[in-house]
Amino acid sequence: MSSAKILVAQGGGPTAVINQSLAGVVLEARRFRGIEHVYGARHGVRGIVDENFVDLTQETSANLERVAATPASALGSTRDKPDIKYCQEIFKVLQAHEIGHFFYIGGNDSSDTVRIVSDEARKANYALRCVHIPKTIDNDLVGNDHTPGFPSAARFVAQAFAGANLDNAALPGVYVGVVMGRHAGFLTAASALGRTVAEDGPHLIYLPERTFVLEQFLADVKAAQERFGRCVVAVSEGIHDASGTPIASLLAKEVERDAHGNVQLSGTGALADLLCDEIKNQLKIKRVRGDTFGYLQRSFIGCVSDVDQREAREVGEKAVQYALRGERDGSVAIKRRGEYAVDYELVPLETVAGKTRVMEDELIAASGTDVTDAFRRYLQPLLGSDMPEAARLRHNPVPKVLGAAAR
Amino acid sequence: MSSAKILVAQGGGPTAVINQSLAGVVLEARRFRGIEHVYGARHGVRGIVDENFVDLTQETSANLERVAATPASALGSTRDKPDIKYCQEIFKVLQAHEIGHFFYIGGNDSSDTVRIVSDEARKANYALRCVHIPKTIDNDLVGNDHTPGFPSAARFVAQAFAGANLDNAALPGVYVGVVMGRHAGFLTAASALGRTVAEDGPHLIYLPERTFVLEQFLADVKAAQERFGRCVVAVSEGIHDASGTPIASLLAKEVERDAHGNVQLSGTGALADLLCDEIKNQLKIKRVRGDTFGYLQRSFIGCVSDVDQREAREVGEKAVQYALRGERDGSVAIKRRGEYAVDYELVPLETVAGKTRVMEDELIAASGTDVTDAFRRYLQPLLGSDMPEAARLRHNPVPKVLGAAAR
Repeated sequence: MSSAKILVAQGGGPTAVINQSLAGVVLEARRFRGIEHVYGARHGVRGIVDENFVDLTQETSANLERVAATPASALGSTRDKPDIKYCQEIFKVLQAHEIGHFFYIGGNDSSDTVRIVSDEARKANYALRCVHIPKTIDNDLVGNDHTPGFPSAARFVAQAFAGANLDNAALPGVYVGVVMGRHAGFLTAASALGRTVAEDGPHLIYLPERTFVLEQFLADVKAAQERFGRCVVAVSEGIHDASGTPIASLLAKEVERDAHGNVQLSGTGALADLLCDEIKNQLKIKRVRGDTFGYLQRSFIGCVSDVDQREAREVGEKAVQYALRGERDGSVAIKRRGEYAVDYELVPLETVAGKTRVMEDELIAASGTDVTDAFRRYLQPLLGSDMPEAARLRHNPVPKVLGAAAR
Repeated sequence: MSSAKILVAQGGGPTAVINQSLAGVVLEARRFRGIEHVYGARHGVRGIVDENFVDLTQETSANLERVAATPASALGSTRDKPDIKYCQEIFKVLQAHEIGHFFYIGGNDSSDTVRIVSDEARKANYALRCVHIPKTIDNDLVGNDHTPGFPSAARFVAQAFAGANLDNAALPGVYVGVVMGRHAGFLTAASALGRTVAEDGPHLIYLPERTFVLEQFLADVKAAQERFGRCVVAVSEGIHDASGTPIASLLAKEVERDAHGNVQLSGTGALADLLCDEIKNQLKIKRVRGDTFGYLQRSFIGCVSDVDQREAREVGEKAVQYALRGERDGSVAIKRRGEYAVDYELVPLETVAGKTRVMEDELIAASGTDVTDAFRRYLQPLLGSDMPEAARLRHNPVPKVLGAAAR
């Protein structure tokens, strides 16, 4: 089987470590004698149907290592979600270029594309090994303990809330930070790892795994404000009401904000602003601030988990090893062993393709607005080494001289 | 003169290194034999009038070093802007506690407070040395080459745009990032240091030092989009029209967004959203995303310039040295010597108090939408060591087999 050419592409949203997987594929493939060319498709499947390829065999190892350490998809990405006809076009191009191995680094949509292309090759009796390499900051791939990209984004969110909590303690008020994750709350939940001591924020965490009720939210904020004299809130962009309608749309309608009828979740600060408006208007709290972490949480250069880097490199390497043994197509999956090591497995594409994992119940506190110790134990080893500390002064009060009465 | 007690406080917005200045004051003061107590006021001037003091003489050096490395005001801060009566109350408390030296770490409002307290002491013939210690991410203090806090925030902005540019190159479209800075554009201009190669974004930079004209903005974005196939824009939250009216208010009115009439600059994503709406509606560009960096840019834990850390420590140390020589009150100022070293001077409080520095003309490109080489040379040494790299693949295209005609 297997021609001397392999093709690698990157799909979906960029992450801090997706280029580690790319480097893993390229450097590992170049070690195999039989491989003459390693091609990269520009902008994912779109680059395949456009035959927009670059020859990665001509890249230096030094530059591949530098690119590996750089966030965002170095080959470019795409939001195209191929249907069967699109996948048939992909297959036609792979055939024309005599590609023997196809590697697609992406989320669950990408794994579905790999599944269909794999089917087409089998139907055409064309020898093609197709391997899906996992990545997504949402951590929503089934069959994986976690997905490359998530640990670094989680580290960003934890560091952001650690800092926001200190800022909020210095200038007390309500702070709402909106985090990515339409269906899965893992990334929002990572905010809990920003705490050092018991009274640290986030004091409340709202996940898409639980129904969001505005009245309850306002009551929660009020209670936290009374207890701590301030309140830090982490909110998933995907929070929704009992019918599944995003809160962003509901609130936008209430305040008649949207002139054009379209509410999008990422790339806009609307949800944070709308929640802040509700807090100001309903609770009469004066200092209320909202931040939407937006693209910073997946693209910020200089915040990365070394554990994530290592694993992202390894899933790329393992993909090549699985494919060049040539046994079967599949998706590389990360399995946890103890506290903390990982093994890799090649699982059937059907296991992952088009499915969405959400947070398991045991990771969410009974209150619905916090995580459990099980979640903290799950996430802690993924964040990597050298997490910055949030130190604080110890409390040594000085007796008053004038006293309150004097003024 | 000088009693055995000193008092230190922090005012205004927290920064990544304001606690370095605090540690500089405390550790340096504790070296002086005559000093028996180092007090800290909780929440700035508010803590002084409330006699809400902690005894920093009881802090361990180890913990002070950990706090120094932690962002946000460890003593707490305040937005109170004292008038003369408030300052008289401050003086009354300093007198009651027999404070001999008063150090206030803050921006230009804080230096004005120090000025008035200093006046009150002189009028009352009370021996008090008052020294203002500079800090502000806005870099808007006159008499300083730059201010502690700005380099670290600038580093955050540069890293954010370096990453956002890569993300935008991977998934092309228009990206608008809104940066803090109501009057001074230094922090927004720092986005330019995120570029590596000529075609990198930000492709356009809008500063409060120049009048913002919506039609010109849209024409600029259109031209960049046509030239690069994508467009990354850095916008200061303080952009305004020829009359000085903030663009956030103007656009908000146009789209009738604001139900309550109050448009605030920070802590809301409104400006980014409104500019994105204009681009979508006027230019018919489909993928348009806006991020507001918000509190992340000043509070994110784990992004700091080591040059900034060192200098913030030194201005605290120097303040104590100036005060304990006891000659005169003043504000510690950073002066640049060559490329790159700094000296410190104690300048009169009147030099700094209540004045605002904006970007000098030679730092802004003639186009009004970029910075000059002079600005890059100015900022580069402040960003510190180990700036993360934005590496990219070299272009080695593969010839097409099917060609466009085949599909």
